[in-house]
Amino acid sequence: MRDKFNLLKKKYSEVADISSATSLLHWDQQVYMPSGGTAARARATSALEELAHRKFTAPETGKLIADLYDWAQSLGHDSFEASYLRAVKRDYDKAAKLPPAFVAEFSKTVSEALGAWTKARADSDFSAFSPYLSKILDLNIRKAEIFGFEKSPYDALLDIYEPGVKKEHIEPLFKKLADGLKPIIKNINANSDRVSGDCLRGVFDEDAQLRLTGEIIKDLGYDLSRGRQDRSAHPFTVGVSINDVRITTRTQKEYLPAAIYGSIHECGHALYAQGVPPEFESTPLCDGASLGVHESQSRFWENIVGRSLSFSKWVLPKYRAHFPGKFDHISPEDLYKAVNKSAPSFIRVEADEVTYNLHIMLRFEIETLLLERRLKVADAPEFWNARMKDYFGLTPRKASDGILQDIHWSLGSMGYFPTYTLGNLLSAQIHNKLSAELGGMDALIEKGDFHTILGWLRAKIHTHGRKYLPDELMKKAINDELRVEPFLDYIKSKYSGIYKF
Amino acid sequence: MRDKFNLLKKKYSEVADISSATSLLHWDQQVYMPSGGTAARARATSALEELAHRKFTAPETGKLIADLYDWAQSLGHDSFEASYLRAVKRDYDKAAKLPPAFVAEFSKTVSEALGAWTKARADSDFSAFSPYLSKILDLNIRKAEIFGFEKSPYDALLDIYEPGVKKEHIEPLFKKLADGLKPIIKNINANSDRVSGDCLRGVFDEDAQLRLTGEIIKDLGYDLSRGRQDRSAHPFTVGVSINDVRITTRTQKEYLPAAIYGSIHECGHALYAQGVPPEFESTPLCDGASLGVHESQSRFWENIVGRSLSFSKWVLPKYRAHFPGKFDHISPEDLYKAVNKSAPSFIRVEADEVTYNLHIMLRFEIETLLLERRLKVADAPEFWNARMKDYFGLTPRKASDGILQDIHWSLGSMGYFPTYTLGNLLSAQIHNKLSAELGGMDALIEKGDFHTILGWLRAKIHTHGRKYLPDELMKKAINDELRVEPFLDYIKSKYSGIYKF
Repeated sequence: MRDKFNLLKKKYSEVADISSATSLLHWDQQVYMPSGGTAARARATSALEELAHRKFTAPETGKLIADLYDWAQSLGHDSFEASYLRAVKRDYDKAAKLPPAFVAEFSKTVSEALGAWTKARADSDFSAFSPYLSKILDLNIRKAEIFGFEKSPYDALLDIYEPGVKKEHIEPLFKKLADGLKPIIKNINANSDRVSGDCLRGVFDEDAQLRLTGEIIKDLGYDLSRGRQDRSAHPFTVGVSINDVRITTRTQKEYLPAAIYGSIHECGHALYAQGVPPEFESTPLCDGASLGVHESQSRFWENIVGRSLSFSKWVLPKYRAHFPGKFDHISPEDLYKAVNKSAPSFIRVEADEVTYNLHIMLRFEIETLLLERRLKVADAPEFWNARMKDYFGLTPRKASDGILQDIHWSLGSMGYFPTYTLGNLLSAQIHNKLSAELGGMDALIEKGDFHTILGWLRAKIHTHGRKYLPDELMKKAINDELRVEPFLDYIKSKYSGIYKF
Repeated sequence: MRDKFNLLKKKYSEVADISSATSLLHWDQQVYMPSGGTAARARATSALEELAHRKFTAPETGKLIADLYDWAQSLGHDSFEASYLRAVKRDYDKAAKLPPAFVAEFSKTVSEALGAWTKARADSDFSAFSPYLSKILDLNIRKAEIFGFEKSPYDALLDIYEPGVKKEHIEPLFKKLADGLKPIIKNINANSDRVSGDCLRGVFDEDAQLRLTGEIIKDLGYDLSRGRQDRSAHPFTVGVSINDVRITTRTQKEYLPAAIYGSIHECGHALYAQGVPPEFESTPLCDGASLGVHESQSRFWENIVGRSLSFSKWVLPKYRAHFPGKFDHISPEDLYKAVNKSAPSFIRVEADEVTYNLHIMLRFEIETLLLERRLKVADAPEFWNARMKDYFGLTPRKASDGILQDIHWSLGSMGYFPTYTLGNLLSAQIHNKLSAELGGMDALIEKGDFHTILGWLRAKIHTHGRKYLPDELMKKAINDELRVEPFLDYIKSKYSGIYKF
């Protein structure tokens, strides 16, 4: 069995080597590739993806997994071998089910859809994207049928990103969350003039923004000998390998928070990726437990740490150093309020931490209806706008501010959005446990001791990589299950203080 | 046959896609990869190289080549199909001969040797590198035996880089070249005080160096929508794809020519690569005719264009703009002399265009003797130093200034060095033909009309990609064969003018 396991590990690590190359191709494409390189890059990427898929789904691999599974579990649920086999079996069962022809069709559709979406969004023309959305919807329904589900095709897709979570778990959570958020948002809106974000608008040298964010993420614990920070149009994190985890930052000349909080967010993802034990390299355990857990880390650093009053106290001198004169008359309290200004808005990625989750709920609802064939693609924009009116009292003037704003569908992803909100919820639960065990977090943040905070996250969460499903991991790390109340309590207490209601 | 050819093209293009990814991995490793990424990058690179090698050498490919060869030649020697088959057959015959176990051993040895060489050079300790050099020598001799040769193992290795050229062609060329250069060098040395390079030394802001070189290469015709320029420790050019040809520049704070001429040199390679017709993408014709021909392009731009008096006239205002005050009292003639200062030196890559070729001759001789087992590895440093004394009147004080200076052996390459000198010789021949057909080059350079010069190179050389062997290509392009005299005439006329002898 040990020999078989070594053989499986060898085979898997060859797939991981190819995937590492693919990750670098993606990174380069968004960061440094000259425009002329597009066509050849698309070919190279799909060649490597196909090679990796073919290698991974070889029947020999399936046989090894079947032979090894029970043996591995017999070594104890927490053992490396047992966790390895659980993770690799989950991946293999999904990947092997997809016929190569389906994978090719999906990939071709997505590559056309991305171009169509980019143009449709620029023109704010939903009808130009709608045939592609229909195709992508059909393919996602077929994918759900291939993977199999009991109640809703949504379950099969969500399971890709958040294993074990189903629509029936999400719905009551989201209902409770919406019910809790609505009165808070009402209070915020009624007192909106009590908070000004003006100090974050103006003209901020973009090189200085990059230097400032570089300093912050280094202090948070991001290891630059095992990573790097570059500029890109959309911020992202990519793990080329366990010792090469890169983030990107988008600077906006006239709005400082884009670079600051985008960098801290990606840094949160990168700290998780850099904290996975070295022995998980080239194994299916070399990842986070799920997208939701990953998002809990990025949101924890971005919002709970980065948008705290103590963080404002710590970071203000850096703002002053990098933007001489601009923050001389701004107090830590002013900065704290400014970075937490909350208001209804059209665009999800620009939303504050209070209203953000309503954007997600809208998408969850619309995707569910589409996938269950209870809403037609043609009627989706109207549905979108109605929900925007309901949640925010806003009606998008154009599709690019509404249904065309997100890239996800054009990338073929459906069932992905809830992971953002799950991450927000988890981040508050993790915060509670961490605060309880460390005796509060503010004093640490104020003196810039992020090491202690990171150490706790490493020991409780990062060190497990992808050994456990999200619910198991949370049980282990914080002895709790996914709940809405801690996040609502956090939001209520924070924003009632800021907006004085 | 047409179907078979399409099948071969499809198979080859899959290999090319993988190689494109490998090229990007190499680029990133030398330009942006964080130090932590080394181990995983080595694994990913060797995984892709092995995949590409295995795919390319599949017996099915060999069968297709055998089936198609005569058919393709019957379409005419100049046809795409005939050239395609000649090129792919040459590559296949070499690649398929190498047993996988040999490839793996070679790759392992080289990866260890590179580390050993880096350390040995830093410590200037030849004995620490010598066991690795012995292994690499043995492997190269085995490789030569596998490929087959008639007279010298050197022929089999040189053929990898410069197809069709043999030791017996090189020897008389080098003899004539050395005989011609020696009196010129003697005259230069006797009048060394007539030329000062002082204006190129001092402190030059490295960002300004990068901006200046970026401007120059753009004006030379380098298409930045199909390429990019970055910094690296060693300048190089890499073709990720035909529309993504990247160069790197090394800046030295206290010595301006390193960045300027390094950039122009790499730009010369890149202009060649960018000039290959788009329909050659993903085929074995998507390359230069040989390393020598490639070097003829880089040297042409670097030395014949870039170190001309007319270029100094054109470029001086740019020097003044980027380094205010530094070149106010320097005339185009001063600059021309400074960039052409010639003197005996220890280090090949820092040598001027007159003495450079003697460094190559030394390496050619020593490699030949080693490969023919007429010199022992242990005796090589002494031989090196004796030749340095003979050619330059210099004795290296340490091995890092002598036999340990080049990276090539530690990369496993033997038989590579002559291509540098072949490039120098060809560049002078190309210059003569181009000047004759364009009615001189100086007036064009002085007004910055590099477009006309590049257009000529494109039409005569670049457009053929790798369709022809170097000698065929030169016959077609300049109706001449490789000769020493044009280079000697160029050197003699230029340097007798500069040094007034």
